[in-house]
Amino acid sequence: MEKAVVLLSGGVDSAVTLYMAKEEYECHALIFDYGQKAAKELEFAKKIAEAAGAEYRILKISLPWKGSALLDEARAIPTVSLCETKRGGFAVPAGSVSGGGEIPATYVPARNIIFLSFAVSYAEAIGAEAVFIGAHQLDFSNYPDCRSEFFESFRETVRRGTKRGSEGREVRIVTPIIDRTKKEIVETGSRLGVPFEYTWSCYRGGEKPCGTCESCLFRRRAFEEAGVRDPMGS
Amino acid sequence: MEKAVVLLSGGVDSAVTLYMAKEEYECHALIFDYGQKAAKELEFAKKIAEAAGAEYRILKISLPWKGSALLDEARAIPTVSLCETKRGGFAVPAGSVSGGGEIPATYVPARNIIFLSFAVSYAEAIGAEAVFIGAHQLDFSNYPDCRSEFFESFRETVRRGTKRGSEGREVRIVTPIIDRTKKEIVETGSRLGVPFEYTWSCYRGGEKPCGTCESCLFRRRAFEEAGVRDPMGS
Repeated sequence: MEKAVVLLSGGVDSAVTLYMAKEEYECHALIFDYGQKAAKELEFAKKIAEAAGAEYRILKISLPWKGSALLDEARAIPTVSLCETKRGGFAVPAGSVSGGGEIPATYVPARNIIFLSFAVSYAEAIGAEAVFIGAHQLDFSNYPDCRSEFFESFRETVRRGTKRGSEGREVRIVTPIIDRTKKEIVETGSRLGVPFEYTWSCYRGGEKPCGTCESCLFRRRAFEEAGVRDPMGS
Repeated sequence: MEKAVVLLSGGVDSAVTLYMAKEEYECHALIFDYGQKAAKELEFAKKIAEAAGAEYRILKISLPWKGSALLDEARAIPTVSLCETKRGGFAVPAGSVSGGGEIPATYVPARNIIFLSFAVSYAEAIGAEAVFIGAHQLDFSNYPDCRSEFFESFRETVRRGTKRGSEGREVRIVTPIIDRTKKEIVETGSRLGVPFEYTWSCYRGGEKPCGTCESCLFRRRAFEEAGVRDPMGS
């Protein structure tokens, strides 16, 4: 069985991605402890990896310059509400804290470039064929590093900037849920038996999910739309 | 004065790059402690940053999968010799440990993608206009992440994958010595007053430079060709 490195955050998207990847690959999960307020998600990520029978590593990195409400104690996690979009999904409405096509305060500068770079390094070192990342560009927060056009360019960068790439044996960057709605992601996870009780979405990382951050709202809507009970829901 | 983040390793190339950058920018040096055998270069990097009057940060990252002779105690740093190329520079000869167009054992998987990603994150967070990196593609070790075509693609990735990029205010990735020979780099450094006594090139990181690793050989040739005395030379 070929190997894959899977970026795992402890949230629903990466958990579903891991369960998709493990249908075809021997999975090596890579979890980042990067100073996120929701450090709690690390414990969930470990549980998911264990449930999936995947090896995992937690890598501690430091982003001392912060630059994000997810990292900076001096910046509050925005409280938001959702509205329906024409595509039938849900988006942060124009005029809300992070809406109107703006990139929200929860954006972490260059986060996915950093995470993917480590994953590619790991994949190259252990001879893994692919790197999986659970980014999606529908029902999302407008993060630039979750869009297809970003991944297309990153793939080219990896082709040109790595030994494997320059030898024509590229590390494939796989984004299996990139064009799925959050509802579809929950449906897929439900079908694959993802233990959602081991996933954590809340940006705030309190005792229980806050229910008012962007991530909590997207999650609640998705489970409601999919008709799946959220074991972490209120 | 606009700000720039400058990747600093403690070697000659990044020191010269820092001195070039500081002619135009307020420089913030970023130094990586990534488990390199030549950990000694960190002390040199600090001295260079201080000499240049630049702020600096040392970021500790972990690459537990290693995948390089620079990191793995179980893999020896290759001993090499140089030969003259048609371009007038020097290259590792075909048939030597790392020669013949091959990528040497000292290649670190995805290293420059990782370093640049952090630098871009830092630049975005502090509002720096540019990231400087002292890579060059002549007289070099055939590392894929030191070639122009890699940087071109990485620039596009940053344009697409960052907030700044998607707002049309890209973080510029500057490679001021990319097409210079090592001789020219030493000449430039000499002209700019780079204190070469604070630079460390040897991959082995012993008491004194070994004189037989690729990096020592490139350095010696460059100083000889430039007619500059190397204060670290034997």
